[in-house]
Amino acid sequence: MRGAVLYAPGDVRVEDRPDPKIIEPTDAIIGLSATCICGSDLWPYRGIEAIGGATPMGHEYCGIVEEVGSAVTTIKPGQFVVGSFWASDNTCELCQAGYQSACVHRTLMGTIGTQAEYARIPLADGTLVAAPEVPSADLVPHYLAASDVFGTGWFAAVAAETGPGKTVAVVGDGAVGLLGVLAARQLGAERIIAMSRHADRQKLAIKFGATDIVEERGDEGVARIKHLTRGLGAHSAIEAVGTQESMLQAINACRPGGHVGFVGVTHEASIGGMDLFMSLVHLHGGPAPVRRFLPEHMELIANGDIHPGDVFDLTLPLEDAAEGYRAMDERRAIKTLLNV
Amino acid sequence: MRGAVLYAPGDVRVEDRPDPKIIEPTDAIIGLSATCICGSDLWPYRGIEAIGGATPMGHEYCGIVEEVGSAVTTIKPGQFVVGSFWASDNTCELCQAGYQSACVHRTLMGTIGTQAEYARIPLADGTLVAAPEVPSADLVPHYLAASDVFGTGWFAAVAAETGPGKTVAVVGDGAVGLLGVLAARQLGAERIIAMSRHADRQKLAIKFGATDIVEERGDEGVARIKHLTRGLGAHSAIEAVGTQESMLQAINACRPGGHVGFVGVTHEASIGGMDLFMSLVHLHGGPAPVRRFLPEHMELIANGDIHPGDVFDLTLPLEDAAEGYRAMDERRAIKTLLNV
Repeated sequence: MRGAVLYAPGDVRVEDRPDPKIIEPTDAIIGLSATCICGSDLWPYRGIEAIGGATPMGHEYCGIVEEVGSAVTTIKPGQFVVGSFWASDNTCELCQAGYQSACVHRTLMGTIGTQAEYARIPLADGTLVAAPEVPSADLVPHYLAASDVFGTGWFAAVAAETGPGKTVAVVGDGAVGLLGVLAARQLGAERIIAMSRHADRQKLAIKFGATDIVEERGDEGVARIKHLTRGLGAHSAIEAVGTQESMLQAINACRPGGHVGFVGVTHEASIGGMDLFMSLVHLHGGPAPVRRFLPEHMELIANGDIHPGDVFDLTLPLEDAAEGYRAMDERRAIKTLLNV
Repeated sequence: MRGAVLYAPGDVRVEDRPDPKIIEPTDAIIGLSATCICGSDLWPYRGIEAIGGATPMGHEYCGIVEEVGSAVTTIKPGQFVVGSFWASDNTCELCQAGYQSACVHRTLMGTIGTQAEYARIPLADGTLVAAPEVPSADLVPHYLAASDVFGTGWFAAVAAETGPGKTVAVVGDGAVGLLGVLAARQLGAERIIAMSRHADRQKLAIKFGATDIVEERGDEGVARIKHLTRGLGAHSAIEAVGTQESMLQAINACRPGGHVGFVGVTHEASIGGMDLFMSLVHLHGGPAPVRRFLPEHMELIANGDIHPGDVFDLTLPLEDAAEGYRAMDERRAIKTLLNV
C-alpha cells in the first residue's frame, strides 16, 4: 500500500509500505476513506520533536472495515468507522470514567501511521464507532474531523465548562481553536471571543459561531478580554496553542473561579505556581478523550447539525502529502485533508 | 491595645499598638476572643518573604463586635462573629459565584494584623458571620479554625471533588492538610490516605478520619498511592504544602480525570506543561474563599458535629506570641492558638 513516511525534518515521502495485517485478535484492518495532517505532526516535521529514523505518519482516520480479528464482536467488515488517535478498550475503569485517552491498554495511533491506504486499528471494539451507514462523500470530511481535531476542540470546551450564559475566550486560531469555537457554540455558550489576527481564520471563527474577535495578544489581549467582560474576565478559556504565552493568556483571560480547558501540546510551557494560585481558575486538559464524544459527534454529523470538516481548507490526494505538510508549515493552509 | 509585630526574621514582639478605629462606614471593630498563627505567617518570620519594616501580624480571628460603622446593617455590637482572612463585600459577581477571596473590593486581613486585642474588620456585613449566640469557651477554638485553616482545608477538599466513593490522597501533614482530612471525611470520602511521617500528626490524621497512612514521599509516595489504588491513582488529591515536590506528588498521585485541590502557597513551584498535560488531572486552588463555607461550618461547629479546633496543639496567651512562632517554626507545634 501507499503511505506517508517522515525521513527527516521537512522530508515527507509517500511510498510503498507493507500492507497491515491482523496481529492481535482484537485488531481490525480498515481501508481509509480520508486522513489528514495534524498540527502535532508539524512538531517532528519541523524538527522540534526528534524521530528515530523513517517514521510512518498520521493518527486521524475514518474508513471502511476490511477485516476483523477473531475476538472482535461488534465491529463488522463493510462498516464505515471512525476512531480516536488513542486506541482504547473502552471498558477499563479510566475509559468508563470518560478518559479513554488514558486507557490502561491504550495504544497511540501515531505509532501506526494512518496517512496511508490501510491501517491496523488495535482494540477495534473499544476504539471504533460505526456510522449508521456508509456516508456520502460530502460527509466524510466531517466524520474525519471527529477523529481528533473536533473531539479535541470539544474536549477543551467541555474542560473549560462552556455552556449557556457563559462567555468563552478562545486562545489559538488553528484548527483546534476554531473547532473549539464550534464546540462552544454547540454547547450553548452565550458569547464566544475568538483571539485571531488572520482574516481567513477570523472569517471561519465567525462562521463557527464566534461573537467577538480580539486581535491583540499577550497582556494586551488579556486587557481586551477584561474590557469586554466588565473587568472580570471570561467564565471559560480554551487554550489551543501550547506555548508559555498562550497558556498564561488563557489563565489571565479567565475570571477567578472560571475554567481553562487546555489542549495545546505544552512542550515547553511551565506554569508559575503563584500565577496559577492567585488566578483561582480551574485548569484541565491534556490528550483529549475523543472516544468519549464520538457517538454524539457522529450522530450530530449524520444529522447535518454540525460541519466540523469545514476546517479543512486544503484537500489533496494522499500522494501529495508532502505539499499538504508544506502548506500547513507555511500557514498557507489551516488543515489539510488527504483523500485516499 | 496589645498586638504582635514582626520586626525582622525571628523577631516577633507583643507591644502596645494604637486601638483600631472605624475608618469606613462599612467597618466594624471587634474585640478578639482568640487568634492564632498561620503556616503562612512563618514565611516572613523565616525571612523567605520580605517585610517593609515593623509589620503587625495575623489574619485569623473571632470575637465580639464592639462597634459598627454607620453603613453596617446586619452585624450588631455584642454578636460573636467569625470572618475570613479576606474581607469581602459578599455581593459582587465574584462573591456571588463563591469566590469571595477574589471579591472586587477584597482587603487582605494580614495588612491589618489580628494577633491583637482588637481589630478593624472592613466590609463588616459581607465579611462577618454571626454565631447564633456567644459560645462557651470550649467552642472558641473550633470557631477560630473556621476563620482560615479549616476553610482552607475544606476548599482544597471541595476543589479536589472529594465525596462519597472517592479515594483521597492528602499531601501535607500541617494544620491545613490535617483539616483537609477532616473535610474529606465530612464530605463523605470513602478512603482518605494521609501522607505523613510524624507519629503525632499521623495520630491526629486518624482522629480526623484518615483510613490509611503513607510515610513515603516523592516518587516512592506516589508508587505507594498507586499500589493502594490498583495502579490507577487516587480520585482526588489535596495539596497543602506549596513546594515543587508536593505539587508534583499530588498531581502524580491522582488518576487521569481526577482532581487536585491545592492550597499550599506555591511561592517557588512551577508546573511543567507536559507533566500536567499527560496527567489529565483537573487542577484548582488558590486563596480559599473561606466566606463561602462559613455559615455551614459555623452551624456544624455550633451543633458539635465537627471539632476542627483540635488542630491547635499549643495554646498560649497573646503576650507569648513569640514562643508560639518559635514552636511552629521548630515544628514543636502544629498550630498555636493565642488567647486574648
